[in-house]
Amino acid sequence: MSKNSCDIAIIGAGPAGLAAGLYAARGLVDTVIFERQATGGQIVTTSWVENYPAFPGGVSGSDLGELMTRQAQEYGARIELFVTVTSLTRGSDGAFTLQTDSGDSWQARAVILACGAVPRKLDIDGEAQYTGRGVSWCATCDANFFRDKRVAVIGGGNTALEEALYLTKFASTVYVVHRREEFRAAAIVVKRAAENPQVEFVLSSIPLAIVGDDSKVTGLRVRSLADEREQTLAVDGVFEFVGVEPVNELLAGLADATDAQGYITADACGSIPGVPGLFAAGDLTCSSLKQVISAAGSGATAAATALKYLES
Amino acid sequence: MSKNSCDIAIIGAGPAGLAAGLYAARGLVDTVIFERQATGGQIVTTSWVENYPAFPGGVSGSDLGELMTRQAQEYGARIELFVTVTSLTRGSDGAFTLQTDSGDSWQARAVILACGAVPRKLDIDGEAQYTGRGVSWCATCDANFFRDKRVAVIGGGNTALEEALYLTKFASTVYVVHRREEFRAAAIVVKRAAENPQVEFVLSSIPLAIVGDDSKVTGLRVRSLADEREQTLAVDGVFEFVGVEPVNELLAGLADATDAQGYITADACGSIPGVPGLFAAGDLTCSSLKQVISAAGSGATAAATALKYLES
Repeated sequence: MSKNSCDIAIIGAGPAGLAAGLYAARGLVDTVIFERQATGGQIVTTSWVENYPAFPGGVSGSDLGELMTRQAQEYGARIELFVTVTSLTRGSDGAFTLQTDSGDSWQARAVILACGAVPRKLDIDGEAQYTGRGVSWCATCDANFFRDKRVAVIGGGNTALEEALYLTKFASTVYVVHRREEFRAAAIVVKRAAENPQVEFVLSSIPLAIVGDDSKVTGLRVRSLADEREQTLAVDGVFEFVGVEPVNELLAGLADATDAQGYITADACGSIPGVPGLFAAGDLTCSSLKQVISAAGSGATAAATALKYLES
Repeated sequence: MSKNSCDIAIIGAGPAGLAAGLYAARGLVDTVIFERQATGGQIVTTSWVENYPAFPGGVSGSDLGELMTRQAQEYGARIELFVTVTSLTRGSDGAFTLQTDSGDSWQARAVILACGAVPRKLDIDGEAQYTGRGVSWCATCDANFFRDKRVAVIGGGNTALEEALYLTKFASTVYVVHRREEFRAAAIVVKRAAENPQVEFVLSSIPLAIVGDDSKVTGLRVRSLADEREQTLAVDGVFEFVGVEPVNELLAGLADATDAQGYITADACGSIPGVPGLFAAGDLTCSSLKQVISAAGSGATAAATALKYLES
């Protein structure tokens, strides 16, 4: 077990964490970003990002993540990749101690939680059994397995409809199963999906079970909320986009600062009330729009606040 | 005088207004952005932007503004260029009426104020007389006039030091006159300026007067706060970067929602308390970090809130 230290530890290398890293490093303080998976966060599993300002025509999620990563590194932010921070504590001297899954211990003078959010699971029959065998939370990762096949997308937000449209490039038919009649997605995305002949809406319907032949998915059983009728959609793949859960575990023991959904109630400057030196940014905060641009903006803001804290 | 209407009127086409325009237009509502000068806002007069995430190596301010403009237009946001909105009122039906300097009248169901901020003036002797004859608020606009000459930059924030560094590519010597010993700029920018042999710091000093030969600037008179001594720096140009003033005039008569410095006290979602349908984003709001990324993030957030308002 090695002992390491830094001025600002940032947990999570999505848009919020990378923007925080850029701003912290430009403040010439020793900055380390911890990331358990790939840098870029949720955008890495996003096929195409059309609404991050200054990219007319859009940009692939993976390219956007890569560009943000390079820029933070240009100014000296270090990235500890494939490292999970397993615990976070604050000493009586105000310094934070981070334990990682590799057994290392880190000391940091300030910490920015930018752990983001993870896709919510449906917790229905067949979901666990067929995960990786037809059940997926990432169209860019898995679309290619479904060339000329039928798939179902579950959800009604931006992610669900954007990824459904992406899947039409591979699959022959994409059912969109949504429990309401109205979509939460941006109107332009709803319009595109409605106009795409490969997309079929299955509205006011809830998924009951993912069915299969024991080796792979063969269908999705759904029930109509309008007439209670059940049907099984014959599909080879099921993509779930039913929202996200904030990754807030590291806050436990440090502060009681989450709302009813588990989002961290940081203030407009990114400070977490009651814990000097601890900040939060991005999708795990209560005020987040859940967009790349607002996550990055809040990361920059939290880093600026953290730099002021270190100076004081 | 013509009558026009739209769903969402955005006043100002800087990063906040353009991000708001992008998000509003993607909501498929009729979106018009009013801009009295060039699109891009303050970044147009910024030589190089290093800290907008996803642009490693940086991007020129004018390119960044152009990219954001094209993307908002891609989705149908219209831009009324070189149009100043001179008054904004709200009728008893909740609709807003905008009057422009061209004599046109516009109706809008919701309005996002993204008017930004304008450079603060020093209000010292000679400033008005030599404006455009050596006194400038824009290095990218005017640096070329000072090849191999001496210039003074007044200010101690990011803009002052970044533009001072830019000016070293043209001028032989760049004095940085700052009233404190410490700079507010990011540490990396302070370090670069300190290490640049063409930059000379004149610290704990205040500018007293801009002096000239009646046709152009010949010097800047400054007083040391340490020993009260006065001296005249022999310079051909004076660039003022001493902060900005929020452009809040259109709020007058609608709400008493500004802080002591004149910034609009919008909430975290961009709403202006007490005026349904009126929103604010970017540098004219009280919570702004005064950075491109946070301005754009708040613009997207305000547009999302405005779209919800229109639906309700």
